[in-house]
Amino acid sequence: MNPLTLNNALFAPLFTDATVAAAFSTERTLAAFIAFEAALAEALAELGLATPEKADAAAAAIRAFRPDLDRLAAATTDDGLPVPDFVAQLKAHVGDDLKGLVHVGATSQDLIDTATVLALRDVSDHLAAGLTRLSAHLTDLEARFGSNAMMARTRMQAALAFTVADRLATWRLPLDGHLARLAALRPGLERIQFGGAVGDRRFPDGQGEALARSMAERLGLAPALRAWHAMRESFAEYAGWLSLVTGSLGKIGADICLMAQQGVEEIGFAAAGKSSAMPHKQNPVRAELLVAFARFNAGELAGMHHALVHEQERSGAAWALEWMTLPGMAMTTAAAIARAEELLATVNRIGAPR
Amino acid sequence: MNPLTLNNALFAPLFTDATVAAAFSTERTLAAFIAFEAALAEALAELGLATPEKADAAAAAIRAFRPDLDRLAAATTDDGLPVPDFVAQLKAHVGDDLKGLVHVGATSQDLIDTATVLALRDVSDHLAAGLTRLSAHLTDLEARFGSNAMMARTRMQAALAFTVADRLATWRLPLDGHLARLAALRPGLERIQFGGAVGDRRFPDGQGEALARSMAERLGLAPALRAWHAMRESFAEYAGWLSLVTGSLGKIGADICLMAQQGVEEIGFAAAGKSSAMPHKQNPVRAELLVAFARFNAGELAGMHHALVHEQERSGAAWALEWMTLPGMAMTTAAAIARAEELLATVNRIGAPR
Amino acid sequence: MNPLTLNNALFAPLFTDATVAAAFSTERTLAAFIAFEAALAEALAELGLATPEKADAAAAAIRAFRPDLDRLAAATTDDGLPVPDFVAQLKAHVGDDLKGLVHVGATSQDLIDTATVLALRDVSDHLAAGLTRLSAHLTDLEARFGSNAMMARTRMQAALAFTVADRLATWRLPLDGHLARLAALRPGLERIQFGGAVGDRRFPDGQGEALARSMAERLGLAPALRAWHAMRESFAEYAGWLSLVTGSLGKIGADICLMAQQGVEEIGFAAAGKSSAMPHKQNPVRAELLVAFARFNAGELAGMHHALVHEQERSGAAWALEWMTLPGMAMTTAAAIARAEELLATVNRIGAPR
Amino acid sequence: MNPLTLNNALFAPLFTDATVAAAFSTERTLAAFIAFEAALAEALAELGLATPEKADAAAAAIRAFRPDLDRLAAATTDDGLPVPDFVAQLKAHVGDDLKGLVHVGATSQDLIDTATVLALRDVSDHLAAGLTRLSAHLTDLEARFGSNAMMARTRMQAALAFTVADRLATWRLPLDGHLARLAALRPGLERIQFGGAVGDRRFPDGQGEALARSMAERLGLAPALRAWHAMRESFAEYAGWLSLVTGSLGKIGADICLMAQQGVEEIGFAAAGKSSAMPHKQNPVRAELLVAFARFNAGELAGMHHALVHEQERSGAAWALEWMTLPGMAMTTAAAIARAEELLATVNRIGAPR
Repeated sequence: MNPLTLNNALFAPLFTDATVAAAFSTERTLAAFIAFEAALAEALAELGLATPEKADAAAAAIRAFRPDLDRLAAATTDDGLPVPDFVAQLKAHVGDDLKGLVHVGATSQDLIDTATVLALRDVSDHLAAGLTRLSAHLTDLEARFGSNAMMARTRMQAALAFTVADRLATWRLPLDGHLARLAALRPGLERIQFGGAVGDRRFPDGQGEALARSMAERLGLAPALRAWHAMRESFAEYAGWLSLVTGSLGKIGADICLMAQQGVEEIGFAAAGKSSAMPHKQNPVRAELLVAFARFNAGELAGMHHALVHEQERSGAAWALEWMTLPGMAMTTAAAIARAEELLATVNRIGAPR
Repeated sequence: MNPLTLNNALFAPLFTDATVAAAFSTERTLAAFIAFEAALAEALAELGLATPEKADAAAAAIRAFRPDLDRLAAATTDDGLPVPDFVAQLKAHVGDDLKGLVHVGATSQDLIDTATVLALRDVSDHLAAGLTRLSAHLTDLEARFGSNAMMARTRMQAALAFTVADRLATWRLPLDGHLARLAALRPGLERIQFGGAVGDRRFPDGQGEALARSMAERLGLAPALRAWHAMRESFAEYAGWLSLVTGSLGKIGADICLMAQQGVEEIGFAAAGKSSAMPHKQNPVRAELLVAFARFNAGELAGMHHALVHEQERSGAAWALEWMTLPGMAMTTAAAIARAEELLATVNRIGAPR
Repeated sequence: MNPLTLNNALFAPLFTDATVAAAFSTERTLAAFIAFEAALAEALAELGLATPEKADAAAAAIRAFRPDLDRLAAATTDDGLPVPDFVAQLKAHVGDDLKGLVHVGATSQDLIDTATVLALRDVSDHLAAGLTRLSAHLTDLEARFGSNAMMARTRMQAALAFTVADRLATWRLPLDGHLARLAALRPGLERIQFGGAVGDRRFPDGQGEALARSMAERLGLAPALRAWHAMRESFAEYAGWLSLVTGSLGKIGADICLMAQQGVEEIGFAAAGKSSAMPHKQNPVRAELLVAFARFNAGELAGMHHALVHEQERSGAAWALEWMTLPGMAMTTAAAIARAEELLATVNRIGAPR
Repeated sequence: MNPLTLNNALFAPLFTDATVAAAFSTERTLAAFIAFEAALAEALAELGLATPEKADAAAAAIRAFRPDLDRLAAATTDDGLPVPDFVAQLKAHVGDDLKGLVHVGATSQDLIDTATVLALRDVSDHLAAGLTRLSAHLTDLEARFGSNAMMARTRMQAALAFTVADRLATWRLPLDGHLARLAALRPGLERIQFGGAVGDRRFPDGQGEALARSMAERLGLAPALRAWHAMRESFAEYAGWLSLVTGSLGKIGADICLMAQQGVEEIGFAAAGKSSAMPHKQNPVRAELLVAFARFNAGELAGMHHALVHEQERSGAAWALEWMTLPGMAMTTAAAIARAEELLATVNRIGAPR
């Protein structure tokens, strides 16, 4: 994802997904920061570290907070993070009486990682819905064309005849498997980040653990046994899942490109892309994109695994590498599912009646 | 580059560069398409394939063209490319009398690759200027601190004392080398793409070669021996250069992170990033980013080399992978140079006076 | 893994592991082929497709088979695979009377993928044992040094004091998580490959499914719902697990390198590597290797995800990419565990008594 | 490269190359170490730092040295490098009178990097010869089949007819370009490494520069302006070149796979790989391998660029990552050239007579 494919109006429509873009938008990140701080204020009261009145007042004030974005962006440049200035603005906003309930026992990484987890929760819902639709679509194609004859091909050579259903099974089964994998990994991913300055949850007053549990419940997240500031396996694992999805869709794309060739003609479409030089020509544009998306995510995944080498209690380098990588992988996966849906919707023939 | 680090106002300031963003913007891409078509109309006249009057009229009309962007974006979704609709709109714009001078002997890839080359020309100017400043800055730091004593460290262990100048040389010399490498590779990169539907320059009337030469001269590009639709070495090579630059800056960043540690303290800054949890703490934020940028580009480079497997006369899959990769690498390289300049500008001590 | 680090006696000791080397050796691959064919002959009898007498005779003959290796290697060069000639030699070996029980309903990929799965089963046992020992070792270090004081460090800067136990938890918990992940993924990985020429298990006589079940039981593998010739998720997922392990060990290595610095001195060793130039110097060699291994596997993982784009019913290109990648990742993971064990065994101090 | 594709007799023939294997063998590495130390002894005399008699005696003794390999391998395990023990053995071998001429002003990295450069010099000769032969072979195919008609294909769709010569030009021109690139980069690669313990060439007696020049001349290498212990651009650049070569050959492989399809049949072979299940089937095995090799090297290249982040004066982690990566890339490139030659040698038809 980059200036051309993300922001250039001539290219972006093919590469982007509005739901994922929204999940990582400025607005949603700030909303997550605010939800985190409000939950923290309320949790402080639950544990007796603040009066209910003060906590309610603080939570209400926090929820009404709208930071000065220009100042925040400028501060990011100085601090490498938006959080220190966000907290400073928030404390000024809630006033001297309540500022003691802001960011108690928390650190920048707690807010940013929790915001990322909340974004990924929405992303996962979105991707799961898409994969479910895709799987149903493939089941439908199998019902329509599954009994048609088709040449099985191995090592790029015609092998023996089999049926369209045989080919389609290798497209659909992995998607079903990915849905099961996602369900299994979500609990380990959707955990609050709360550790404080050095991740030990010692503050305030040794009640960090209880605070984390209370906040997690308020945010609809798992509590996490410990802060995971420097244990990034759940993000790397999620990235692996994203790349498994695009990899499986890339196989579908590659197959469709090959099936659509003149001389092979094992698939038909109601519509396909035009050529500027040859108006008669129809290109399986989306099928090619699926291959590109698979290869893009395969490469990005390496970056997420490099980011596992997260030194000491917080690595700015490894963390920034995650920021540069994971949201783009999510975007690409959503785009792949969307393009696959569009592509399959145009299919009006697979194989040949026997 | 992705929704978080490219478009989220809280993170983007650290990861983006305005010049590179502009180079790949919708406006500049369209301007390049227009320049291409105008140069083509004029070249047709030069070769006697159109009258000067018609060519002048066509070129003027082309240069005045402002396409319907919404329609273009929608067409990209259908065609996988903005060019077919751009050409359709342009032909309608210039009218029946002149439309015969539009897109003659050209294809979508001719416009898009040429637009990319023109963008990279601006990027290269920008990066070269930045590297030149950085090298000068390092020379200046050497003049100020070069004779200071410093502990050389090998395999993360103190080895023997040497001078700050010894360390700084390993920072500066690679940058000078990269400037020389860039100068050497630019002629092979800054070539027109002109091949027509299948890259053979047969149209119109066997005058494709002459047309390419004339257009190249008008656009300030080299003519290219042949169309390079399916020979992508120059892009992969440029990506390698970008990653060499960020790799060398990543070494500087890693060194500075290590020099700034308590207990080592071989470098001092006038200012550094704040922490939300520990207001007393100063973080070498930009140094860490240089490491992240190096690792990001190292990974992206693989994508550009996968894109060398560009099957037949035009691979939509390999081409889209380039679009997803190369502009983001350029952006990251520019951000790395900018962050390095900012970082070095705050350095007020290296080593210790002997 | 390559000629220098795998076969050069001066470098290999640091990068290799005898158990993994044995798992992918010529001998073990042939033993797996033989086990596959013997199980197949026996399964044919179970399903009534051969008499028990013939099947027993065939299985016995198959188990006694020792192929002509030179001829096999030469045939690999011609066929791109050792299996066609292996089968030809095996049929000749068992004789005309029994050759009808050899390779029935099977294809090259059935043998090679099953052999890989059998190798990975041994690899997983080996890695699980190593991780279990490492986790115990870290528990022991925590018992010995956990209460010592230590400076927590974030973004390469001293933050606040915490305890050695806090740091060690971030080393140990991911390893425990990886053991759980491995247990969860093994059933999906350790499946027989049996699909026949085009993966449809149609041969012989529509009994492919039953044959696969019978063979799987004989080989101690799961039956696999379908042949997975072109669905490679389980291999990509396993590669992801390997890289998670080396990533977590890389974090330990990076931390130890930083802890061992002069001026930091948070860890002590009983012994460390020498320098040829500075005999007084001790290098945390193995800690650095853990970082290298993490980065190596992170990169290789991308290759395994590229191999998910496995076109049609069998992709020679994607399959060969797996061969080039997965065994080396397993080797590197085993080497990382071994180096980590050796490293931790020499640790005689972490942090400082409070 | 790994235990399966490098050492397993059933797979290795397709993936290995004897010349590259020899270049990185134990024997050649030791021969390079010996050549380095002998050149150093002679250079000491040239600079008046030793008498000619002693230097001659030392050089002769060094050249006759055959180290105890078992002891060396064991020492590698302790030291992370073979050099400290090699030097210790060598000093014992030459005796007390001459040991003062051994390893003077040198460090482990000087020997190992110089040995790698000497290996790569042989590799480059070998690859250049192979590329030259391949280019000639393509010229020959063009002479034989260039005027045949062929369907140009863009985005996996039939576009317009052109000639076989048009397709073959996109195969050959990049190889010619790579030969020119190699010639341009070799001088910057084939440089001596000589810097001493911390890379400053201060020892002995400030004559390190002169010593480096003298030794370089004796070894047939360029002197290198400075030691490049921590400036690894030339290795990363060379890796980029290797991957450009395999990328271009991968494009040829992908094209040939597509041309060999039933229904397309644009190429014919005298022989091709067999199938164990379908004896009638011929697989374009080598063409698929070219694709696998391109993707493998594309991924490995990322590792070499990660290794540019080479902290301080010597990074054991980054250096080990180079060892794990670069020789395997060289091996894969040589295998790709060999497989391409074998493949093209069997081609007996391209396109169809017009």
